[in-house]
Amino acid sequence: MPELRRDPIVGRWVIIAKERGKRPHDFVVPEEKVKGGFCPLCPGHEYTTPPEVLAYGRPPGAPPNSPGWTLRVVPNKFPALRIEGELWKEGEGIYDKMNGIGAHEVIIETPNHHETLADMPLDRLVQVFWAYRDRMVDLSRDSRFRYVIIFKNQGRAAGASLEHSHSQLIALPIVPLLVSQELKGSKLYYDYKERCIFCDIIRQELQTGTRVVCENHEFVAICAFAPRQPFEMWVIPKRHHSDYRSIDDAQFQALAEIFSEILKRLQSAIPRCPYNFVLHTAPLREPYLEHYHWHFEILPKLTQIAGFEWGTGFYITPTTPEDAAHFLREIKLGEGGHNGGE
Amino acid sequence: MPELRRDPIVGRWVIIAKERGKRPHDFVVPEEKVKGGFCPLCPGHEYTTPPEVLAYGRPPGAPPNSPGWTLRVVPNKFPALRIEGELWKEGEGIYDKMNGIGAHEVIIETPNHHETLADMPLDRLVQVFWAYRDRMVDLSRDSRFRYVIIFKNQGRAAGASLEHSHSQLIALPIVPLLVSQELKGSKLYYDYKERCIFCDIIRQELQTGTRVVCENHEFVAICAFAPRQPFEMWVIPKRHHSDYRSIDDAQFQALAEIFSEILKRLQSAIPRCPYNFVLHTAPLREPYLEHYHWHFEILPKLTQIAGFEWGTGFYITPTTPEDAAHFLREIKLGEGGHNGGE
Repeated sequence: MPELRRDPIVGRWVIIAKERGKRPHDFVVPEEKVKGGFCPLCPGHEYTTPPEVLAYGRPPGAPPNSPGWTLRVVPNKFPALRIEGELWKEGEGIYDKMNGIGAHEVIIETPNHHETLADMPLDRLVQVFWAYRDRMVDLSRDSRFRYVIIFKNQGRAAGASLEHSHSQLIALPIVPLLVSQELKGSKLYYDYKERCIFCDIIRQELQTGTRVVCENHEFVAICAFAPRQPFEMWVIPKRHHSDYRSIDDAQFQALAEIFSEILKRLQSAIPRCPYNFVLHTAPLREPYLEHYHWHFEILPKLTQIAGFEWGTGFYITPTTPEDAAHFLREIKLGEGGHNGGE
Repeated sequence: MPELRRDPIVGRWVIIAKERGKRPHDFVVPEEKVKGGFCPLCPGHEYTTPPEVLAYGRPPGAPPNSPGWTLRVVPNKFPALRIEGELWKEGEGIYDKMNGIGAHEVIIETPNHHETLADMPLDRLVQVFWAYRDRMVDLSRDSRFRYVIIFKNQGRAAGASLEHSHSQLIALPIVPLLVSQELKGSKLYYDYKERCIFCDIIRQELQTGTRVVCENHEFVAICAFAPRQPFEMWVIPKRHHSDYRSIDDAQFQALAEIFSEILKRLQSAIPRCPYNFVLHTAPLREPYLEHYHWHFEILPKLTQIAGFEWGTGFYITPTTPEDAAHFLREIKLGEGGHNGGE
């Protein structure tokens, strides 16, 4: 019998079609042609991107936009939103619109064209999470922005248009609907229970254990109770805080460790698995919130969004999160693997 | 400058990245291999599907599940939900779940393997819309169901797993989140204005005309003001009613005419364009609603859902709906084309 499950935060229902019972090897991702040719994100090609807004790793005194970096952040050459101008809002009869003020940046995670987050050394993965915070802190000084969304598209099927590993950041003049729903859902829970729903999720998941992929001192990685895609994972900090900008050194290290581990497990279970991940954090202008809890959501791109999903906001997934977590835990990681740093 | 637009009903914002300014020929859809081999939906293969629940076109007295039909509805062989059993709901600590009671049916729209909705004769397209109503009316007798979602996935990129033209129906024991949001948004508008927002959309769109693709006595087809995909279209009945089950003969004919026309225009603008469409209608147990208005939403599948969309519920589209409507209106339809039946 299939099962309907409700995401406790936003109230979204999903259908777990157990009978379809897909295991990792049922998801075969076609091998992508390695495109030769020119990569604008590779070292030596800095002149092809807009001037960088952040770089790590160059020796002191080295000029900006030159090689020698280990991580580099540049404005998107084809931005969805533009940084210049005043924000205006206006109506068009019954409709509302505003101009597309915002920032759209590319975080070039590595100088090595073929390196992915899953096989990157930990100290450089730490830099990626540092860069997210540095850019959020900088962009929050701009009073026009109300939200910074940070996300990654890995693999063509997940929407990546460049092969060289990178994440993206978009600063928005509004708080997106899904973020508002998440805030509202967790506030409702808090008003009723006086507890953070994410803290309760951590407690319950660690107690039952069936959906836990791995954990360390600072973080737990679980397969989501009501997933939108097979093998959907959430990485949640054990210490309560609503804002990613509060992250500290111990957390940076532990976050890199757990991310490295779950991505290795995922790639090992489903070779070349395309995925998206998104940082969920409070809006820029919010104070510390008792009811909200920052975290990452990782969505492998293994099933199609089709008419049913467009019409309902409902998702059908053919793998239970308990099975997914079990498969991922059972993966034997080879050398260079991490088991949570414990 | 890009533009942010808000869907007036659900409050979802989208980014129109005008600079990317994609025209129809920028969207090239790869030709699909015509798979030879066995089609379970073709006449003569009725024994391969579960027994039909509806069929049109057979001569009186012909046995069910035999050839001779022009349209046939069968339970899905691999259903996302199961029709048998009592509905139970339960908690799992902080989580909510229920068993997957529901119906999942396939509407086989044509006996001809290679025929699509765009090139089907009008009288048979009328039958497709008849079948939607017949099945909704029948399923609404089952007190366990609260919503029937009807949708179509055309083309592999839009999620179709069988080539033979078909739509699908899923009866659900709950009202999906997106439907609730739509009802809530249109109720808010009604409470403020005492007018239906869809009726206001029709009035404004026909007045400005820039987003109108075509119209006839009963329906108008527009490119949505805040689209999630390039060339997203809505087909809205001019007569207010919240429930698709109220559709009458004049509307069936006019609906087939306008659908045939917009699909011909779309396929002509973007050959082999994959798309999804979804019927939006009130929940089964609702009385006539002053604030809600049934309609179809047609979403060409031309851009990827990636990290940004997963994280925000926001969409970036590279074509303005004004440009899209202009392109679609300018298409010269050949013989067998319709210009709205006027």
